[in-house]
Amino acid sequence: MPTEVPDGEFADRLAAVRARLGETGADAAVWFGATAIEYLTGFHHIQTERPVCLAVTPERVELTVPRLEVERVSSNPRVDAVHSYFDYPGGEPVETAVGMLEELEVGAVRADADGAPGVMGYDGPALSEFLDVETQSWVDGMREAKSDVEVDLIRESARWANLAHRYLAEYTEPGAHPVTVSQRASMEGSRAMLDALGSEYAVRTRGDGPVHAGYISGEETALPHGHTPNERLSRGDVLVTGATANVDGYYSELERTMFVGEASEEDEHYFELMCEAQETAFEAMAPGVDLAYVDDAVHSYFEEQGIAELARHHVGHNIGLGAHEPPYIDRGSEGEMEPGHVYTIEPGIYTENAGYRHSDTVAVTEDGLDFLTDYPRDLESNIVE
Amino acid sequence: MPTEVPDGEFADRLAAVRARLGETGADAAVWFGATAIEYLTGFHHIQTERPVCLAVTPERVELTVPRLEVERVSSNPRVDAVHSYFDYPGGEPVETAVGMLEELEVGAVRADADGAPGVMGYDGPALSEFLDVETQSWVDGMREAKSDVEVDLIRESARWANLAHRYLAEYTEPGAHPVTVSQRASMEGSRAMLDALGSEYAVRTRGDGPVHAGYISGEETALPHGHTPNERLSRGDVLVTGATANVDGYYSELERTMFVGEASEEDEHYFELMCEAQETAFEAMAPGVDLAYVDDAVHSYFEEQGIAELARHHVGHNIGLGAHEPPYIDRGSEGEMEPGHVYTIEPGIYTENAGYRHSDTVAVTEDGLDFLTDYPRDLESNIVE
Repeated sequence: MPTEVPDGEFADRLAAVRARLGETGADAAVWFGATAIEYLTGFHHIQTERPVCLAVTPERVELTVPRLEVERVSSNPRVDAVHSYFDYPGGEPVETAVGMLEELEVGAVRADADGAPGVMGYDGPALSEFLDVETQSWVDGMREAKSDVEVDLIRESARWANLAHRYLAEYTEPGAHPVTVSQRASMEGSRAMLDALGSEYAVRTRGDGPVHAGYISGEETALPHGHTPNERLSRGDVLVTGATANVDGYYSELERTMFVGEASEEDEHYFELMCEAQETAFEAMAPGVDLAYVDDAVHSYFEEQGIAELARHHVGHNIGLGAHEPPYIDRGSEGEMEPGHVYTIEPGIYTENAGYRHSDTVAVTEDGLDFLTDYPRDLESNIVE
Repeated sequence: MPTEVPDGEFADRLAAVRARLGETGADAAVWFGATAIEYLTGFHHIQTERPVCLAVTPERVELTVPRLEVERVSSNPRVDAVHSYFDYPGGEPVETAVGMLEELEVGAVRADADGAPGVMGYDGPALSEFLDVETQSWVDGMREAKSDVEVDLIRESARWANLAHRYLAEYTEPGAHPVTVSQRASMEGSRAMLDALGSEYAVRTRGDGPVHAGYISGEETALPHGHTPNERLSRGDVLVTGATANVDGYYSELERTMFVGEASEEDEHYFELMCEAQETAFEAMAPGVDLAYVDDAVHSYFEEQGIAELARHHVGHNIGLGAHEPPYIDRGSEGEMEPGHVYTIEPGIYTENAGYRHSDTVAVTEDGLDFLTDYPRDLESNIVE
């Protein structure tokens, strides 16, 4: 099982964008978006007020970065040259990138945006003030269907998410603090992953671990994006969990509805409906099936059960380098499920008192589905203390 | 000491934007940016493919949100009405927001952007397809100078960052894993903050703690944005730490250069130069001083010492609801330091082998400086095992 993106993947990705570039009259393809730059080169950075610009021509791959990233780019075997400005706002990121493009004798570019994104106060000129610019979203499109290696990286992520989720269940008991249980499970899960992978571990975090597991609890679960309250756990509390691991930038998503010690009759009722809704989605999914059809199948199930008004969101989203990626399993989506799409399947039910939601990460294959998360979904396995 | 933003702050902020609105001919001010919406209303959410839109008129504050946020907004005392679309892409976020504005009898707006930001695959229409739109960045400007309450929230954050940093120093020893030490310090710091604040704690996290402390170690410190390697600590390792806490959305920044057990002569040399550079910045800072002057003072110091080529970035940044906020202490910045600005002061020195950087969070006051972080800066205090 791969634990980092192999060189061949980057070669394939760069070949694909060069093929797209060849179909245009442009001299270079350009990206300012951090995830696209990581996807094509493996150089990952946090998008800040200091822009980064990638240029790909038929022969060259060059980057413009702030001074503080120069050494980290220099060791990247896919980058032929690095250009830099000192910092922002004193430096001139776009002008430096234009200088790079002029050295490459580039006149017309296809760029992911007409300049760097305006985050954290960055406010610079459009690229089109200097060059002939048309926009493209080639990488966004390429990222939708994952390669076999990408699916395996997400599978590796799910392996460690599963483990951390076991710790989460193990440390849960009445009187425990939900934040402390969450952080302890993350710590132990991270430690296990680091020790098991050893030198195979792709170093990705900064003062934190690669594995995160945790939950929201009690009435906060009634909110799909609820928070973890500052209250110790009590017998009968509903928990909605989440676990993931960063495997060379790729993520999976595992969520379970759990109960501290016991589930009430109402809890059992909604838990079973939620499980049925998730099964309904699994059964509707296949390569070639409309995304809207899958969301609609779950919506119809909720309507049959008379609980459509307890739904708060669609069935799921694609996942990979991003925690949420298009396409979405939504009644308004126009596309269909394709081999290599990796979806979270997470229909939820929300009453006034609590929420009920599992989330599994599932890859669409040529002939069916490949379940990447495998933590037990049944009620008995999810009553813990 | 406040631990959450009081109602009066929101009243002041809303009054300020209404005053700005009154100076224009527009009927409403509109925001799509998550941080601005939180700043004005206290409703915080993660910016995703599901847009949120805030409208402020002279009489009303209304929000358009995805269905999954409705209940969380309903309990917000500052929001007079909530409108919702079910989800994206099936729902129509901008059209729903336009419906909200039409009900408010709004024809012309001042908005932070001409539509919602294109994150996570969101791709919707411009607001100007429906209404007369001019852009404004009022909240960005208001956020630069913090109120007394905001400074106190950052001070409270620094208090817990200091504590977690103590744990970090305490758990550090040869043979320990840097990731585990980091996660353990975060867990214990979070637990202390949660137990000490009790019901005063503003619930903000989701399956994680409010306090984070951690470090990068060894050769990775030579990179300003280095990572935490999968290698146990050894005697003599250089550590560059970071600690912060989330206090109702506000952050501080504390960083120290530490050494495991002993510092080499070279380490001592660069450590002292780094401390001097930080002192140089502190001495140059005052209300009314040009931002460029402070960065230049440090740059001149580095030049005098013959180590200008070991700098990789400017002196620091404003901080608050954002981890990095403008203005920046940079030779290219045009503004000056004003009372209420809260800066990280973090000039760094980077050799081929290691990096040396402290970061302190310092508020500019009417008559000087207010140090919010107070962890010891001297060499002896930062040799730990």
